[in-house]
Amino acid sequence: MNVLIIGANGQIGQHVVRKLHESSEHNAIAMVRKEEQKAKFEEQGVKTALVDLEGSIDDIANVAKEADAIVFTAGSGGHTGADKTMMIDLDGAIKSMEAAKQAGVKRFVIVSAIGVHHRDKWMSSAPYYSAAKYYADVWLEKSGLDYTIIRPGGLTNDPGTGKIKVAVDLERGQIPRADVASTIIASLEDNHTIGKAFDMIGGETPIEEALKSL
Amino acid sequence: MNVLIIGANGQIGQHVVRKLHESSEHNAIAMVRKEEQKAKFEEQGVKTALVDLEGSIDDIANVAKEADAIVFTAGSGGHTGADKTMMIDLDGAIKSMEAAKQAGVKRFVIVSAIGVHHRDKWMSSAPYYSAAKYYADVWLEKSGLDYTIIRPGGLTNDPGTGKIKVAVDLERGQIPRADVASTIIASLEDNHTIGKAFDMIGGETPIEEALKSL
Repeated sequence: MNVLIIGANGQIGQHVVRKLHESSEHNAIAMVRKEEQKAKFEEQGVKTALVDLEGSIDDIANVAKEADAIVFTAGSGGHTGADKTMMIDLDGAIKSMEAAKQAGVKRFVIVSAIGVHHRDKWMSSAPYYSAAKYYADVWLEKSGLDYTIIRPGGLTNDPGTGKIKVAVDLERGQIPRADVASTIIASLEDNHTIGKAFDMIGGETPIEEALKSL
Repeated sequence: MNVLIIGANGQIGQHVVRKLHESSEHNAIAMVRKEEQKAKFEEQGVKTALVDLEGSIDDIANVAKEADAIVFTAGSGGHTGADKTMMIDLDGAIKSMEAAKQAGVKRFVIVSAIGVHHRDKWMSSAPYYSAAKYYADVWLEKSGLDYTIIRPGGLTNDPGTGKIKVAVDLERGQIPRADVASTIIASLEDNHTIGKAFDMIGGETPIEEALKSL
């Protein structure tokens, strides 16, 4: 499977690219914004696409044409303001969905955030962040694409365990970014996850088994 | 017609409230956030509802029950950041639509901004503002409500002329807020505007006649 990773230079994105690149069954196409990011991935032998997510849908669709699936894990990050949250986490996600449709790519996996499907669980310190995630998810559900919406809890840089807990609704908890990346890839490999949206934290169940329980 | 005005204390909202209040056919319900705003409207004999647009859908639905139509003209304004744009112009609008459905109010008129239905016309200085307006409008179009989406050009405090120019796409131009308010009310009175979305600037055609041309 050729997988376009949008947000490849992000912390989860880098895990996804590496795991796909190491796999014998998949090829990663790392979509990045900056020349130096492109150079870094190419040194590792990873195919790249230089596209600004704040640019046009056509530009994204143009690289999406080479993919069988799209992973959206871009985020404006904690250091930018709400303006970038709107333009990357919300508008960038929706443009990527429209680009997928334009390019004829059906499969779309998005990384959201735990609990955002319930307004009363939105982050009180940054409700706009939860709102951006929520509206992107709703757009995807209505897009007609073969979606999977993964809503991880608090992200850590701990080593991956290969074990998770998933359900439509979970209490807040933590999960290593490496396990989020593994779950993204396992979702791509399991069509049972199409049309599913779920919270996810660290747990006791092997990833493939956990996904089958959904 | 009992009309709930969300954003009643805004510059357009105040015009709408006054015009409805002076009309013999309609009653205004001014939805406001602060006690002093409530007091101001009540001194004028206008019915009010004290509801925070950043609160729950239920709270909005509760006052919407008394209305036959909803006018959404709330905006976070130019002095707040993109976080408030997300929570008022986008999330507040969408919550109001959900509240309308919950309360069984079908008719919903929203004030958007000229050109936001074309990405290449989004404000380069504040694309998040255009994005918020755009996504609220799209949500409304898909809501099942009897909507009218009014997209005025640059707003001025000039006296109203009663004459406008409307079309799905117009070049940028200015329009007095008083004329936007008159167009909102004329739209409520003309079911031909249901399901319509249009740009609007100052023009030569009387409002009622202009709306019939859509």
